[in-house]
Amino acid sequence: MLSWFSHPYPSLGVFDDMQDFEEGVDVPDRSKPASAPKPGHVLAASPAGDHVPRPRYTSRSAAGSDGGSLSSEAPFHPPMPWFGMDIGGSLVKLVYFEPEEVLPQDAEQDVELSRTIHKYLTSNKTYGDTGIRDAHLEMRRVPINGHFGTLHFIRFPSSAMEKFIFLAKTKGLSALSSTICATGGGAFAYEKLIKQSVNLDLHKSDEIDSLVSGIHYLELNHPEESYFFENPLDDSKCRKVPLSIRDLYPYIVVNVGSGVSVLLVESRTKYQRVWGTSIGGATFLGLCCLLTGAKTFDEAIALAAKGDHRHVDKLVRDIYGGDYGRFQLPGDTVAASFGHMLDPERRKNAKPEDLARAVLVTVTNNIGSMAMMCAMNAKVDKVVFLGNFLRINDLSMKQLSHAMDFWSKGKFKAVFLEHEGYFGAVGCLLEYMSLAKAGTGVVDA
Amino acid sequence: MLSWFSHPYPSLGVFDDMQDFEEGVDVPDRSKPASAPKPGHVLAASPAGDHVPRPRYTSRSAAGSDGGSLSSEAPFHPPMPWFGMDIGGSLVKLVYFEPEEVLPQDAEQDVELSRTIHKYLTSNKTYGDTGIRDAHLEMRRVPINGHFGTLHFIRFPSSAMEKFIFLAKTKGLSALSSTICATGGGAFAYEKLIKQSVNLDLHKSDEIDSLVSGIHYLELNHPEESYFFENPLDDSKCRKVPLSIRDLYPYIVVNVGSGVSVLLVESRTKYQRVWGTSIGGATFLGLCCLLTGAKTFDEAIALAAKGDHRHVDKLVRDIYGGDYGRFQLPGDTVAASFGHMLDPERRKNAKPEDLARAVLVTVTNNIGSMAMMCAMNAKVDKVVFLGNFLRINDLSMKQLSHAMDFWSKGKFKAVFLEHEGYFGAVGCLLEYMSLAKAGTGVVDA
Repeated sequence: MLSWFSHPYPSLGVFDDMQDFEEGVDVPDRSKPASAPKPGHVLAASPAGDHVPRPRYTSRSAAGSDGGSLSSEAPFHPPMPWFGMDIGGSLVKLVYFEPEEVLPQDAEQDVELSRTIHKYLTSNKTYGDTGIRDAHLEMRRVPINGHFGTLHFIRFPSSAMEKFIFLAKTKGLSALSSTICATGGGAFAYEKLIKQSVNLDLHKSDEIDSLVSGIHYLELNHPEESYFFENPLDDSKCRKVPLSIRDLYPYIVVNVGSGVSVLLVESRTKYQRVWGTSIGGATFLGLCCLLTGAKTFDEAIALAAKGDHRHVDKLVRDIYGGDYGRFQLPGDTVAASFGHMLDPERRKNAKPEDLARAVLVTVTNNIGSMAMMCAMNAKVDKVVFLGNFLRINDLSMKQLSHAMDFWSKGKFKAVFLEHEGYFGAVGCLLEYMSLAKAGTGVVDA
Repeated sequence: MLSWFSHPYPSLGVFDDMQDFEEGVDVPDRSKPASAPKPGHVLAASPAGDHVPRPRYTSRSAAGSDGGSLSSEAPFHPPMPWFGMDIGGSLVKLVYFEPEEVLPQDAEQDVELSRTIHKYLTSNKTYGDTGIRDAHLEMRRVPINGHFGTLHFIRFPSSAMEKFIFLAKTKGLSALSSTICATGGGAFAYEKLIKQSVNLDLHKSDEIDSLVSGIHYLELNHPEESYFFENPLDDSKCRKVPLSIRDLYPYIVVNVGSGVSVLLVESRTKYQRVWGTSIGGATFLGLCCLLTGAKTFDEAIALAAKGDHRHVDKLVRDIYGGDYGRFQLPGDTVAASFGHMLDPERRKNAKPEDLARAVLVTVTNNIGSMAMMCAMNAKVDKVVFLGNFLRINDLSMKQLSHAMDFWSKGKFKAVFLEHEGYFGAVGCLLEYMSLAKAGTGVVDA
C-alpha cells in the first residue's frame, strides 16, 4: 500500500490502492469532445451482496432533495458516479450514492468504469494510509430523487486533494462526468486545478445551503440521527437520548471543522451564518501535534482522554481558593486556560496527556461559550453541534452538554448528530442530483 | 539580590532587597492587642525630593472616591501605608499612594517604619528579579479623599504572594495597619494565610466595583488616560488619539488579565459582568512558554513581534484560494488557528517567533470576537480594553482596533487606557480610604 499522504489527520489516501483501476480499463481522453451525452449508467450488482432487495424504478421522482417517495415518472439520473464532496480546511468529505436499480442507456465502457469505481469504494474500508470509509455511518435504501440506494461516507485529508485530482486524471475516473459537485472552501481553491488537470467543471454548491439541506435530509431519512446526552458527566448514568430536531425550529447549528461556523436556522429555507471562530478542530489538532507529539486526530483524542487539564489550566479555585460566589462560578471552572504553564516547575512536569486534555477543554469551552452567546442573542434554546471535531470525541460532546445545561440553568439543550461532518457533502450530492434534473448544466449535453 | 521568584511573568520579587528594613526598625508584636488606634501617621519628606510643593491640609474632604476638591474639613487618614492591591491570577498589582502633606498624631515608631517603607518603594524601580515599579505610570499631585499625593504603580507575580506575606510579617510592615485592602481572586485565596501569618484582616473589595471605580478615578484625574488608534495597521500613519470616555456611557469594558472578564458599564453606578473567557493573557504566555521556550511575558511579546502567524495559521485564502465573498471574509482572515500545524513539514519548520505570533493572534482575535459580540448584544459602540495583557502589546491593541473597525464597518471603536492593569488596585485603594473614613472597621479601633 502506498503512503502518499503523511498528513496527521485520520489515515487515508483515497485511490492510492489502485490495482482495481489498473486492470483493463479504457480511459477516454477528456481533452477531446465527449462522444455522447451520458444520461446514466448501468451499475452492476453490489460486490458486498448484502443489500436489501432492489426495487427497479421506471418512474421519475418528484421528491426533490428530501429523497421522498417514488412517483410514476422515471427517475432522472445524472452521470455517475454520484458524489457529493465537501472540501474543508483539513478534511475532504465524500458521500457516494450507490443506487440499487440497474440504470439503462450507458456505454459499455462507462458501465465497466462505474463498476470498477464502485467496487473499489465499497469493498474497502480504508484507502492507502489516510483514507477512511466510515462504514458504521452507511445508510441503506434511502431515496434520492426517485432512486433508492446506499449512501457511503468517505473522508481523506484535504492535503490529498491534488493526489485525488491526479488520480482522477490518470485513472479515468473523470471520464464518466463533465462536472464534479463540491462545497467547502476547497471548491474554490481547487476549481482551476480540476479544470486544467481533468477538464472537469466544478459546480460549487453553497456551503451553508449544502449544510442545512444535508442536515434536513439525514434528519428525515435516518430515524435516530439527532440525540442529546442525559447526565453527561456521570459515566454510570450517562445515555444518549434520541431527539428529532425535524420540527424544532429555530435552532443554532455549530459546525466545528477546522474552524467553527455558527448558523441560525429558523426554518427549512430561512437560515444565516451568525458567527464564526478560527479556534476549531484544526486548532486542537495543530496544538496537540506541537505540544504532545501526537500525529493524528485519533491519537490526540486518545491522549486527551487519559489526561487531566487541571494540571495545566488555572481553575477558579486556584485563584479564589474555592467557588466565586458572586458570579456563580464553581471552583472547578477554568479561569485561565494554560494558566499553570507560567510556572516553570509545572511546565517541566506537564504530561502530554494533560496538555492534550487542556487543549481539548480550551477549544471545547470556547466553542460552547460562543454557541451559548449566539443562542442567547437569537433567543433560541437548542444548539445542534456537528462537524468532524466531534468524531470519536465524546469528551467534547459531554462537556458541551454539561456546559449548555449548567450555564443556561437547564434551559438550553446541546444536540448532536450521528453523521458528524458529512452534512455539507450530503447537501452537495443532493444538489448535484437535482441540478442535473433541472438541466442546469451539470449533465454534459 | 535574591531570586526567590523564578516565575516567568515580568520580573519582580517585591521586598527581597530588604536592607532598608533590617536597620534599626522596631517591629511591634501584632499578636498582642494594639497599644492604641492609629488614626494616621507623619510621613517624612519624600526621599526623591522632586515633588511639587506640598500643601498642608487641615480640612476634611468630602470628595469621596473621585478624589475631588478640598473641603474645609480636615481629611481623614487611615493607617498608612496607603495601598490598594489587586491579587490576580498571574500578577499582583499594588498601588501605593504617597501623600504630600505631613500627617499628625503618629507614634514615632510608626513614622520611622512608614518612612522606611516609603523610601524602599519609591527609590527603587525594580524589586528583586520579578518586581517592577511602572515609573512611567506614576501620577503626581492627585487627590484622594482630601489628600494630595503621588500614585505609584507596582506589580509582581501572584506566585510571590506568600513571600510578600512572609516579609510583611518578618519585617514589620504589618505593624502599621490592622487591615489590608485587596481585590482580585487572591483576596479570597490569601485571606486565611494573611490572618494567620500576620494577624491582618483582609478587607475584600469587590472586583467589579474596584475596577469600575478605578477606571472612573483615573479617567477623571489623568487628562489623557483613554485613547484610540487611528490607522492602526499603517505604521507610517498610525497614531494614538486621546478620547475621554468620561461621559461616553454606555460602554463595554474588556479586562484582559490571566483570563478575560467583560462588563457592560451603563453609568458610574450601573454596571454588570456580562461575559468571560478563560483564553486570556495567561493562555498567551502559558502557550508561548511551552511552544517557544520564552520565559517571561516581555520575551514572548518581543518574539511575537518578530514573527509571522501566516506560517502557522490557516487563512481563508489557504482554504478558499482568495477572499470568501459571500461572508465578506478577506483572504487574510484566519480560518483555522494553528491550521498549518497539521502538516508535519510545516510543523517541523515552525519558528518560535511565528508560533508566538500565532498564539498572540489567536488569543487577541478571540477576545475581539467576544467583545464584539457583547457590544452588539448590548447595542453599545465603544469597547474599552484594559488589563496587563495589553502592556507593551501594541500588536494586540492595533489588531483589536482594526478588527472592531473592520467588522463593525466603522461603527465600533476600541478604546485603551494608559494604566492598563491597575484599575482594580486603584479602586481598592479608593475603597480603603473611604471605608476607613466611613468607620467600617478598616481602622483598628
